Amino acid sequence: MLFLLRQARCRAATPRRLSNSPARYLQTARVIFSGIQPTGVPHLGNYLGALRQWVTLQDAAAPDETLLYAIVDLHAITLKQDPAQLRQWRREMLASLLAVGLDPKRSIIFCQSDVPQHAELMWILSCNASMGYLSRMTQWKSKLSLPATASPLDLAPPRSPSAPSLPSLKLGLFSYPVLQAADILLYRTTHVPVGEDQSQHLEFAREVANSFNHIFSPTTPLLIPPETILSPAKRIMSLTKPTKKMSKSDPDIKSRILITDSKDVISKKLKSSLTDSLDGISYNHSTRPGVSNLIDIMYYLDESIASSPVQLCADFQNMSLKALKEKVAEAVDTQIRDVRERYESVMGGDAGALADVGDEGARKAEERAKETIGRVRKVLGFTWD
Amino acid sequence: MLFLLRQARCRAATPRRLSNSPARYLQTARVIFSGIQPTGVPHLGNYLGALRQWVTLQDAAAPDETLLYAIVDLHAITLKQDPAQLRQWRREMLASLLAVGLDPKRSIIFCQSDVPQHAELMWILSCNASMGYLSRMTQWKSKLSLPATASPLDLAPPRSPSAPSLPSLKLGLFSYPVLQAADILLYRTTHVPVGEDQSQHLEFAREVANSFNHIFSPTTPLLIPPETILSPAKRIMSLTKPTKKMSKSDPDIKSRILITDSKDVISKKLKSSLTDSLDGISYNHSTRPGVSNLIDIMYYLDESIASSPVQLCADFQNMSLKALKEKVAEAVDTQIRDVRERYESVMGGDAGALADVGDEGARKAEERAKETIGRVRKVLGFTWD
Repeated sequence: MLFLLRQARCRAATPRRLSNSPARYLQTARVIFSGIQPTGVPHLGNYLGALRQWVTLQDAAAPDETLLYAIVDLHAITLKQDPAQLRQWRREMLASLLAVGLDPKRSIIFCQSDVPQHAELMWILSCNASMGYLSRMTQWKSKLSLPATASPLDLAPPRSPSAPSLPSLKLGLFSYPVLQAADILLYRTTHVPVGEDQSQHLEFAREVANSFNHIFSPTTPLLIPPETILSPAKRIMSLTKPTKKMSKSDPDIKSRILITDSKDVISKKLKSSLTDSLDGISYNHSTRPGVSNLIDIMYYLDESIASSPVQLCADFQNMSLKALKEKVAEAVDTQIRDVRERYESVMGGDAGALADVGDEGARKAEERAKETIGRVRKVLGFTWD
Repeated sequence: MLFLLRQARCRAATPRRLSNSPARYLQTARVIFSGIQPTGVPHLGNYLGALRQWVTLQDAAAPDETLLYAIVDLHAITLKQDPAQLRQWRREMLASLLAVGLDPKRSIIFCQSDVPQHAELMWILSCNASMGYLSRMTQWKSKLSLPATASPLDLAPPRSPSAPSLPSLKLGLFSYPVLQAADILLYRTTHVPVGEDQSQHLEFAREVANSFNHIFSPTTPLLIPPETILSPAKRIMSLTKPTKKMSKSDPDIKSRILITDSKDVISKKLKSSLTDSLDGISYNHSTRPGVSNLIDIMYYLDESIASSPVQLCADFQNMSLKALKEKVAEAVDTQIRDVRERYESVMGGDAGALADVGDEGARKAEERAKETIGRVRKVLGFTWD
């Protein structure tokens, strides 16, 4: 579900000197960009792994910093989507971003498809992106559940009905990293909070920026190769299959807690979560993945209660599993109650108000995007004077 | 050089009933679209093969017909361009379009890169375009001078310095047909004047439209599969290598006549044109390509002077080659004198006026493009309501 940013808290909260020297890039302040796909209401993994950090970044930002958070629906359509559901999921995601505490007065919150410059810059960058390089990237393979050795041209529909039926790779999915690079570079982003699984794409965005600058604006680099903001991983696992990450795509709704779940639902989902039949509580992801995941959830919800998950576990060692689950349920409810209430208030309010937030975000984003595209057009020769 | 349209005169001048039934596509009037790459001042081959037909289409258009002519600079950058030259070539092409007789009050004349919806629709369509299908298309192969059997992944830079150095295929060039489909579909084009070498791409645009409609708007098809307007070929060959088409990319400037060449330059280029040392004048492209090309040029400049090139040739059979060349030079000068004078007047006039024409064309094109993109966004689920 997540596009970029998974864990971004620690270093992000402390603005630091750009090694992308401001003078060199004619830019003096940090610009932070991240995106999330419109997949409806986020679950606890999205919240703890990314969204809460977006809020932290926002609240710690210096006055001259810019923050942009995009609902990346142009990426969503690289896989098949039901339009009515996608429309609903866009709304739910926007409401969720407001509910977790993003403030549209401080952060620019918008939908990618409302800003045509994303696709425009993507096309321009694609004219310098090598097919060979893209075919070696792994995201399209994992999205189609293919092995790392798969080739984009293996996947054409079979010519004979008896040949094995491989998924047909679409140009959009194959080109995904170039659009992602455009998303970032369009806002002259200096910092991208990012999960480890996205580091390949960030590296690609940097190469694209450097290559563009080398060709089109060698003296004053126009595009900024973004730096990553990394922080220790906060992986939240499925409640029903605790060796897999909590995921929106799991058909079992009990595998995840949504940030809008009621106290009662939270409690039921945790009660039915898969643990084990060993005595007591101990923390070991290999031997006790279910229990360790519950400890992680509780710890990451409020890191002030212990110095580490291991430390927290020590406090609980003689507790029953049932009691632990109740304690975690209570902690989850305490931490997300405000989010749930704000979400309900936003979704229950005037439908036009939510649209207004989206429109206003798009307007601000487009204003910035036009600045960059204007400069890009100029160095390409796309002007009349 | 040409993007679409080469010969479009005969059938295009007679509006006919749409087999794309108006009711079915909620559109009652013809929309004609074509594009040309910004490669500076056009030569006689461009003029006779395409641009003059654009004017004919314009002048014969019914009042409710829309004509759009695009300078397709987003396609130009699929191959390496010098920005300063590209900027100059855009100006020269726009001035040329006005000089040949396109009227910005009647036709929408604009630069593709000024209308971001081209790239936007391209991305959307790319999410449903198969990599396998695109890899079997031939344009990227011919642009890189590769055999029809070449694969897009053969072309990555060689890993060892001793390996043969093949050109690196860029994503933009590979994706070219999808942008071209977007160019056409964006304006709900019903008719595209097209040369034979482009028929594969038109077929692709139709498939893209049908496939989009099937998925996203099955009851009222949103995108219109365009019809082609074909007319007998008018191939103008190089003056110095008459078995090859007249081309901007030939380094020998004497191989082509520009539509802005002075009487003196026209005369000199024709005098030095390659013919043969046979006696008299006869028309046979296999045995006398140079002479036949001169006859073709004269005939196509003014088809009222004879019923065919063969007929025209009969009038000249006892003429010397020198006299024929003088006669052709005179005919060329007579036919393009007005074009040259208008071109000089436009280019010599206020630079801002030319920019104003481009800006106004882009504004009108974008207005139409936004209508289509608005509907596309809606059926995809890219809306707030």
